Amino acid sequence: MIQTAHGEVQTPAFMPVGTQGAVKSLTPSDLQDVGAQIILGNAYHLYLRPGQEIVRKAGGLQSFTGWHRPMLTDSGGFQVFSLADLRKITEQGVRFQSHLDGSRHEFTPESVMRLETDLGADIVMAFDECIPYPSPRDYVEQSTARTARWAERCQAEFRRLGPERRHPQALFGIVQGGTYADLRVRSAREMTGIGFDGYAIGGLAIGEPKTATWEAVAAACSALPPGKPRYMMGVGFPEDIVQGVALGVDMFDCVMPTRNARNGTLFTSRGKMAMKNAKYAQDFGPVDPDCDCYLCRCFSRAYLRHLFMAGEITAAHLGTIHNLRFYLSLMEQIREAIERDRFGAWRNEFSERCSSVD
Amino acid sequence: MIQTAHGEVQTPAFMPVGTQGAVKSLTPSDLQDVGAQIILGNAYHLYLRPGQEIVRKAGGLQSFTGWHRPMLTDSGGFQVFSLADLRKITEQGVRFQSHLDGSRHEFTPESVMRLETDLGADIVMAFDECIPYPSPRDYVEQSTARTARWAERCQAEFRRLGPERRHPQALFGIVQGGTYADLRVRSAREMTGIGFDGYAIGGLAIGEPKTATWEAVAAACSALPPGKPRYMMGVGFPEDIVQGVALGVDMFDCVMPTRNARNGTLFTSRGKMAMKNAKYAQDFGPVDPDCDCYLCRCFSRAYLRHLFMAGEITAAHLGTIHNLRFYLSLMEQIREAIERDRFGAWRNEFSERCSSVD
Repeated sequence: MIQTAHGEVQTPAFMPVGTQGAVKSLTPSDLQDVGAQIILGNAYHLYLRPGQEIVRKAGGLQSFTGWHRPMLTDSGGFQVFSLADLRKITEQGVRFQSHLDGSRHEFTPESVMRLETDLGADIVMAFDECIPYPSPRDYVEQSTARTARWAERCQAEFRRLGPERRHPQALFGIVQGGTYADLRVRSAREMTGIGFDGYAIGGLAIGEPKTATWEAVAAACSALPPGKPRYMMGVGFPEDIVQGVALGVDMFDCVMPTRNARNGTLFTSRGKMAMKNAKYAQDFGPVDPDCDCYLCRCFSRAYLRHLFMAGEITAAHLGTIHNLRFYLSLMEQIREAIERDRFGAWRNEFSERCSSVD
Repeated sequence: MIQTAHGEVQTPAFMPVGTQGAVKSLTPSDLQDVGAQIILGNAYHLYLRPGQEIVRKAGGLQSFTGWHRPMLTDSGGFQVFSLADLRKITEQGVRFQSHLDGSRHEFTPESVMRLETDLGADIVMAFDECIPYPSPRDYVEQSTARTARWAERCQAEFRRLGPERRHPQALFGIVQGGTYADLRVRSAREMTGIGFDGYAIGGLAIGEPKTATWEAVAAACSALPPGKPRYMMGVGFPEDIVQGVALGVDMFDCVMPTRNARNGTLFTSRGKMAMKNAKYAQDFGPVDPDCDCYLCRCFSRAYLRHLFMAGEITAAHLGTIHNLRFYLSLMEQIREAIERDRFGAWRNEFSERCSSVD
């Protein structure tokens, strides 16, 4: 359990992604209905639009977005490094061009701490470099060392800004190190040495083989302090979350459930369903008979398929409600299994259910 | 008040448009929250997709869409005639090509009655020709006479299909006659002669001057029986609805509130607001302080503007909730004013409020 200024977050937790200050197609009321306890905003996107000044004047992200519960902002590291040709890294920070209008900007550890203080989420992430996969060991080593130096600068600036906060904020460091287990351990030790309220494992699920992902997570976890939250960034499929929990991860975020929903792919207790498939045209049963969401309680597969085929926004809305409910209900099951000390048994049952793909 | 198999509709009523079986971006739960009592589906669109067979097998539109309250289907006349070069009219009916894939189809009074029986709305419209504006008097006269012959065939087929209905359906005739007052009177008399459960005034608000619109409505109303519902199709702006009520109209439908919402134009008690306007960027007040909808209770103009600027689906969703609440609250005010026998006074107040455009 994580305590924040806007309430408790039970762990393991999944955080729906609200890139631009809204989880796409949903409202805060919908998010409460599906059982979300914390959501994520992207500092890079909010910096460009509407800009930190407007969010600050609105009283911070919660007040601006109407989601008066826990929030986390990433640091923009992942987004900025995704810009590829549009950015240049120095020791000072990163100069980049906006993907919206090509305008020039710079992120430094200090400017990002100011940005995240203005945005005012309960948990804020240090500024890091998300290293591409594959990358030569030399580069990963240099970049990870710079991320550690940036983490120290973030920590110092975050403390300096303390008196300006409206409410307490927690700062998380980010472990990098690519797919090199020893560099992950080294990075985890460096971050622990600096000392953060929690630790993220970044730079994974970006194209590397699954075995490499889990090796890196295990290595990082082995060197992180036991009493602090661990957050695996940008992950993932339901089975990845279960695996992450098995390795000791407490927090996850991913656009998977929301993006897939908008494309018509729904997660269910029996596997994934491509809702546009013609076989659902006259299927008047619920999408997932085991699901308690609004979609599954009140509408048929045939109706949802029709809405997707007809390009209706309501399809994205209902699909997103369902997929998030699936993810959040999964987390509820995991937490209950852990509490009852039967996570291993639950995990076996889960794997069996998931292998019977619809 | 109109009694249907799925409940009562208080009049004057505004019907949100759910073209393809969903009011764009909303769910039935949202529609209940904004106070909708009846919604409209488009027979032409539902005929093409998902097709009447699927809706029939689902148990009718209410069962298919999850909206278990009153519904009305138009007859497809307006949509088919909007196809222009893609259709050919004969005494038998209309041959047309689908706007989706160019496939060839035919609507006749008989096939449309079968279609609307399969769709199963509480109120169904007779098949008519929506005459373009402007049209020569000769053509309007011939077409309106044919619409009357089609109305008789609709009536006969509707009766013949009686034993196949799951629940009682009401059939409304449609008065045509273009902008020629005498032809409107003649059409209204012909429809009254055939005898329907209610009467629509069609073929208006398609580009003719406002004075011509109201002259045609007044003429039609003068010749319609006093005890049956009158429905002005496809209208309109709030002030048009108020004017229609003044002339004795009981029912309205229009895509205006929903379409405008998706484009960022919101109706308020002080006039229309273009939400993308830069002047709202730092405006942290509610869209309409006099409105009780979810948007106005929980979010600011600045946040809604941000969502529209960022292209978030949630903007369309919240905007639609607001605009429909504005229209449905307007109808509540009108009904209350009529009940308290002060519609004239209320109308003056309304006009004054509306003239102060934001």
